[in-house]
Amino acid sequence: MAEEVKLFKTLSSPFALRVDWALRLKGIQYESVLEDLSDKSDLLLQNNPVYKKVPVLLHNGQSISESLIILEYIEETWKQDPLLPQDPYARARARFWAKFGDDKVLPSLWTAFISEGKEQEAALAEASENLQKLEGELNGKKFFGGDNIGYLDIALGWLANLITVLEEISSLKLVDGERFPLLLAWMKEFSDVPLIKDCWPPHDKLIPRFIAHRQVYRMKPSST
Amino acid sequence: MAEEVKLFKTLSSPFALRVDWALRLKGIQYESVLEDLSDKSDLLLQNNPVYKKVPVLLHNGQSISESLIILEYIEETWKQDPLLPQDPYARARARFWAKFGDDKVLPSLWTAFISEGKEQEAALAEASENLQKLEGELNGKKFFGGDNIGYLDIALGWLANLITVLEEISSLKLVDGERFPLLLAWMKEFSDVPLIKDCWPPHDKLIPRFIAHRQVYRMKPSST
Repeated sequence: MAEEVKLFKTLSSPFALRVDWALRLKGIQYESVLEDLSDKSDLLLQNNPVYKKVPVLLHNGQSISESLIILEYIEETWKQDPLLPQDPYARARARFWAKFGDDKVLPSLWTAFISEGKEQEAALAEASENLQKLEGELNGKKFFGGDNIGYLDIALGWLANLITVLEEISSLKLVDGERFPLLLAWMKEFSDVPLIKDCWPPHDKLIPRFIAHRQVYRMKPSST
Repeated sequence: MAEEVKLFKTLSSPFALRVDWALRLKGIQYESVLEDLSDKSDLLLQNNPVYKKVPVLLHNGQSISESLIILEYIEETWKQDPLLPQDPYARARARFWAKFGDDKVLPSLWTAFISEGKEQEAALAEASENLQKLEGELNGKKFFGGDNIGYLDIALGWLANLITVLEEISSLKLVDGERFPLLLAWMKEFSDVPLIKDCWPPHDKLIPRFIAHRQVYRMKPSST
């Protein structure tokens, strides 16, 4: 009997993209279910009752949420083409930088994107400092995973997808070749991999979505 | 040659306790280095330059930080007495609830502890909702890991350690037997395990520390 592998996602979720990429890198057949977050399906609510958000992976009736945890699940369930390195210390480093991306890099870039004035200046300085650390992690490597795409490339892949969108809307320069030559080269290398590019949401559809996101966040009393 | 296994921690860090417990459960000999966070050692700063905080595990010259990532490292480096279950789905669930503990349960309890009035009421309601989810996860089990202590018990162990401290200082009832009979029973079972109890910081030293923490946070303009 064929396995049931379903991914609940939205068009613009960078976290769901991680799961798309991981499944494709391992050659797993799966079905995508596109969710509209303003009108979530009963199936999504049943399968992620705690957070009620995407991505959710449904595998033979069992649902897993939280994208980095889904990556670990995929790695442990389908062992071909490992995403993580074999050495425990290298694995810990990959996990550390993935978490740093979510906990530090993303919030600082997002705050820079939605804020203005002094708050934006502070967020830009923080984002720059955070990106500098990722730049250091790329030293001497084509991908974060080395010669090939690995777990950390997948975890940070949203950067390659979103930076141009955020830059275009905000007119900010977030990742430039002068400060971040390695990161910029990585963004290009990563985006050019066919399997990655195939999942890319269309740029012209992302732009209006992120303009709308920005509007909503700017109207909130607290900007984070 | 003997292995170098050093744990940088403070007396009151609930995150560092996770590492103590995991190392002891696996029977690993290690040295504890007690840090004073108001005067951090050069060694701590060198070994966790990104966050400059405890816990940090130093193993044969390689440093790992972020307590849940350290637990994965310990699990992969010393394979005896596994902390995580074997089944990928059960592993994903344990990781999901551990992250939920850090992302949701801890902030809601902490906000209830340091806030007042309407903010405190809202935080208490949120904390209660979050704890109810953990209560459900214990259904039919002695420990989160089943008959024995596992990864999720270690990850949530701070609850068993801190609830009584927060309750004593704030006069709030956070975990009571009426709403949370299973959680309360787990807190007692877990605390009574000799290996766990041995690492417990002395209650009379925690009380003044958390009174001081509360004071500091209450003086900040934003309370989270």
